[in-house]
Amino acid sequence: MELHRIGIIGLGLIGGSIGLDLQAKGHEVCGLVHREITATRAQERGLAQLVSTDPTIIKDCSIVIVALPLQQLIEPTQELINALPANAVITDVGSVKKPILNKWKNLHPKFIASHPMSGTIQTGVEAGQRELFKNKPWVATPDQTTDPEALKVVKNLALTLGSNWVTTDAETHDQAVALVSHLPVFISASLLAAVNQETNNEVLNLAKTIASGGFKDTSRIGGGNPSLGVAMAMYNSESLLKTFSTYRSSIEKFEKIIFHKQWDKLEQELEQTQINRPDYL
Amino acid sequence: MELHRIGIIGLGLIGGSIGLDLQAKGHEVCGLVHREITATRAQERGLAQLVSTDPTIIKDCSIVIVALPLQQLIEPTQELINALPANAVITDVGSVKKPILNKWKNLHPKFIASHPMSGTIQTGVEAGQRELFKNKPWVATPDQTTDPEALKVVKNLALTLGSNWVTTDAETHDQAVALVSHLPVFISASLLAAVNQETNNEVLNLAKTIASGGFKDTSRIGGGNPSLGVAMAMYNSESLLKTFSTYRSSIEKFEKIIFHKQWDKLEQELEQTQINRPDYL
Repeated sequence: MELHRIGIIGLGLIGGSIGLDLQAKGHEVCGLVHREITATRAQERGLAQLVSTDPTIIKDCSIVIVALPLQQLIEPTQELINALPANAVITDVGSVKKPILNKWKNLHPKFIASHPMSGTIQTGVEAGQRELFKNKPWVATPDQTTDPEALKVVKNLALTLGSNWVTTDAETHDQAVALVSHLPVFISASLLAAVNQETNNEVLNLAKTIASGGFKDTSRIGGGNPSLGVAMAMYNSESLLKTFSTYRSSIEKFEKIIFHKQWDKLEQELEQTQINRPDYL
Repeated sequence: MELHRIGIIGLGLIGGSIGLDLQAKGHEVCGLVHREITATRAQERGLAQLVSTDPTIIKDCSIVIVALPLQQLIEPTQELINALPANAVITDVGSVKKPILNKWKNLHPKFIASHPMSGTIQTGVEAGQRELFKNKPWVATPDQTTDPEALKVVKNLALTLGSNWVTTDAETHDQAVALVSHLPVFISASLLAAVNQETNNEVLNLAKTIASGGFKDTSRIGGGNPSLGVAMAMYNSESLLKTFSTYRSSIEKFEKIIFHKQWDKLEQELEQTQINRPDYL
């Protein structure tokens, strides 16, 4: 990839990590952040060569990565829109693509909707780290209005960071993330909510004493950041509700099999889930 | 704990691990196994000082631990029952207690229903390891017919292995394990089953590509040993079906909140699950 001056708006986990890797590859990185205190810390951590709260910092960039939280990507401020250089290739990092693509394709002719799929539980200016995207999928969701040259630029950017480049349509992306990323949050949260509904205190106290690895793993993402869960539900509700309906039928099926003591059938179902799981690892 | 000659019936993960630790504490351990090949290997691994397929090996033991799979504990063979020394304290390791207690309290006057709660994904004669039970709960479920002296003997045994001794009634135990141990298996399996119901191949293939840590953790125990899942359902179905019903109401509640776009309410619910989770860690 030829060297660029690249703007990154937002230097949290995703933006900061991209900034570190791009500088290591020789690019010039200009970071735009909201607060002075973040700018100071981002500069100290070397997340970009130049960091400012002044939108003009990105005016000469040929690529701009908008690495803001989902809500700010779906409802961008006029100030953000005005800051985007007219000739630059613009991409985002949002975890839901249909509402972002629908919004941004009318805002900028060289916008590429994309989703680098990696993360840690860290957030904020301290979270950025090297090689976060290495060997991880970077999904782009072009449509018929997408500029093919701009798409190539973002593809090269993803490859430079070591990501596996994947393209699909926004609808397919949003359904797939609903299934394997958003639905599990609510499955897991429902387990915690169900256990907490136990009214027999002796059972509840014993449950707390004996909960072990299986419970810990199954409940992990249901005990995560509430705002993230709300954003997933809010911006991907159509796809998510489809997966809820499928999931409910799965859980009801297991319940019926157990109620009717169909043990051979239960064994077959569990053999199937055992066979299926490695496909997702 | 004074030194004993202790019999262990079955030298798989649980029996083998107990055998290793008890020998290290100075006890004499006699292992009774089903097959010659297992006896040879158990002897090689030092899971007991003496290992045999002949039931008379345990005839002079003062304590006998029946470390067999759940089904064999609930439906013990006449040969197994005949092998139990009349004066020994007998205990088991089964993960469901009501059916075991109901069966065994009529079989032997010094039977103590108990459940050492620890494990790995390993099974069989190679699985036993030192200190498997250290700092883990060991739950006993005596009732009004239980011999208090025999209960003390099993308590000392559990403490010798470093376990945290807990007593409760069998009903409470079975409800608590249904909630935090058995229900999660079916929640997790239902996720795998739901994803596999996806009929759009493009979505399914992308889902397989992008599934990451959250999916892996939530689906882990649903992709485990099918026979174990069947045994849980078969022998704890009453308690398990109660938890299914509670869980279904939790998942339906989340679905309704999302359908009605009650985002503040969703945030409150997820804040609650985030607060609750550390109680189970």
